[in-house]
Amino acid sequence: VVSLDPDAAGGLGTVRIVGTGLLGTSIALGLRSSGVRVLLHDPSPTALALARDVGGGEPDPGGVPVDLVVVGAPPDVTADVVARELADHPEATVTDVASVKSGIRTAVARSGADVTRYVGGHPMAGRERSGPVAARADLFLGRPWVVCPGTGNERGVGVVRRLAAALGATPVVMAADEHDQAVALVSHVPQVAASLVAARLVKAADPAVALAGQGLRDVTRIADSDPALWAQILSANPGPVGSALRDLRDDLTGVIEALEALQQSNEVGARAALARVVSDGRAGRERIPGKHGEPSTPFAVVTTLLPDRPGQLARLFDVLGEAGINVEEFGLEHAPGQKVGLAEISVLPAARVALEEALTAKGWQVV
Amino acid sequence: VVSLDPDAAGGLGTVRIVGTGLLGTSIALGLRSSGVRVLLHDPSPTALALARDVGGGEPDPGGVPVDLVVVGAPPDVTADVVARELADHPEATVTDVASVKSGIRTAVARSGADVTRYVGGHPMAGRERSGPVAARADLFLGRPWVVCPGTGNERGVGVVRRLAAALGATPVVMAADEHDQAVALVSHVPQVAASLVAARLVKAADPAVALAGQGLRDVTRIADSDPALWAQILSANPGPVGSALRDLRDDLTGVIEALEALQQSNEVGARAALARVVSDGRAGRERIPGKHGEPSTPFAVVTTLLPDRPGQLARLFDVLGEAGINVEEFGLEHAPGQKVGLAEISVLPAARVALEEALTAKGWQVV
Repeated sequence: VVSLDPDAAGGLGTVRIVGTGLLGTSIALGLRSSGVRVLLHDPSPTALALARDVGGGEPDPGGVPVDLVVVGAPPDVTADVVARELADHPEATVTDVASVKSGIRTAVARSGADVTRYVGGHPMAGRERSGPVAARADLFLGRPWVVCPGTGNERGVGVVRRLAAALGATPVVMAADEHDQAVALVSHVPQVAASLVAARLVKAADPAVALAGQGLRDVTRIADSDPALWAQILSANPGPVGSALRDLRDDLTGVIEALEALQQSNEVGARAALARVVSDGRAGRERIPGKHGEPSTPFAVVTTLLPDRPGQLARLFDVLGEAGINVEEFGLEHAPGQKVGLAEISVLPAARVALEEALTAKGWQVV
Repeated sequence: VVSLDPDAAGGLGTVRIVGTGLLGTSIALGLRSSGVRVLLHDPSPTALALARDVGGGEPDPGGVPVDLVVVGAPPDVTADVVARELADHPEATVTDVASVKSGIRTAVARSGADVTRYVGGHPMAGRERSGPVAARADLFLGRPWVVCPGTGNERGVGVVRRLAAALGATPVVMAADEHDQAVALVSHVPQVAASLVAARLVKAADPAVALAGQGLRDVTRIADSDPALWAQILSANPGPVGSALRDLRDDLTGVIEALEALQQSNEVGARAALARVVSDGRAGRERIPGKHGEPSTPFAVVTTLLPDRPGQLARLFDVLGEAGINVEEFGLEHAPGQKVGLAEISVLPAARVALEEALTAKGWQVV
């Protein structure tokens, strides 16, 4: 089974992690599981102690030569921290994990630091929870890890590729501006759109929001995000995000004009314009690769009705346990206003028939 | 197990379904499971035969008096079909399932048909697949079913409420224009936004789309929708959708202007404007109701490690069942390549301590 890569970790030497939030601590945990010596630093003594307590390594005592520094600071201070680390550790490669890359490189270069030892990085992973306690050694498994080369830092690029590989991620080498345009499209524009759609609900009537279904929930899921963090991310990438949002606004204006034309008269051209927008969206959607870059999961999903009472899940899993069925994924969904849920049980395709037979034999309704 | 309501179905009499697509055939299946006589009609002989073959009932032989006609036609022909059915079945209540309501009522009234027997309906349910073969008797279980009263049609409103209840849905009585404004916010605007975000990917470079993560996938999931159907839906609701999209465009322009200001200089006010947009989105997102149609409950989430072997979930739920703990939501997350999973157990906040104690008493590690 593929997982972390201790061979890649072997050549990393001693690694200093500056900023023990979710990403920094997850990197620490992953490296430690491959036997790498990890030294931790964070301006917050609490965050530092938590990262140590979850097994991230020892607080950096100072004075130990390090081979690699990973900066996991908030985006708006990353450049300053990178410049300081380059100065403090004159032999080390320094990388970061911030989600926008061009501006940081420019600021580091402008600071006078030795930019040939800086290699920008962006692991495309995260969780809804933040902080060291949410950290996981496997957070980066199978995720892309963008590595942004500069000039004269080929050696450092190799080190950061090795870091990514050691954590089970897939290194993707890409110029910083190319990266920033890419994340504008796949991350920053979707965030703005989700927030703007969700913002429409602030003044909506109660009976209106009561009609919300899964579509709205999916479109707005990431609108739960942290405003302060996103203000930093968006403002670090104003060119690419602004450009993509202007394009989006042009298309939106086309939709609004088509709707206005339809309010006047039942124009066929206006309808065609609306269909084209949905059709373009479908074409764009089709370009998104499956999970982990593979085609979508090959699990078989069996759904059964579940009364909303204590003990029903135990009854259900007794049946599965007795039948020797290994559950790969499990989801429980409750319909609004109903005291019954839908349990979605994912198993390897070969186990599907056995699962369905085991359920129906015990009186569970497969739907 | 709670499900369809045969008592409500009892008073419906003979039901004619016109249009045997996903919704029409699902209604037919649900009614038949409660013993209602269902007569099917569809202009497509193939769709009609499929609906019969999956158990939806007999093709309408004509000449049989019917008590209720359910029109499941495409939105742009619904008003015409409703008017014709009102004329052909002078004793029957006629309802429909189209997703926009004001325009249909106006068109039916204008046709000279007996509008006092027409009651608009909108079951808020669907699937990614369409057509009679995708139909399910339980499609409407726990979903809202909007019932739009007119003038002088109290009797018909009662009939359609009974229809919704018979299928396990929750009838929600709402004026047609109020409904159309609500679905603009919870369904039509999200659809346009998802399509516009996804459309940005059409011309994106391959390495850019390769960076797509779960956020983009969620925001654009409904961009897979059918362009022809959505052109119909959007053009049937131009006022409310246009108005909400103009508001959204104003906010979007605010974001674009803030980003342009940031390209000139690092303006604090511009950053605050970006944070406000994300913050407004979060406030809107919080209004989306959780399960059971109640305000979203801040469930307490307890996470425990779960070995990836058959029977472990049964062991876990035995512990919960014995402790009398009602699981509100349950998620199982396997890291690829790891022989251990994380089980996330959501309970009402008051049950959190009892849950943690029950788990640790039985040797489960709470993380």
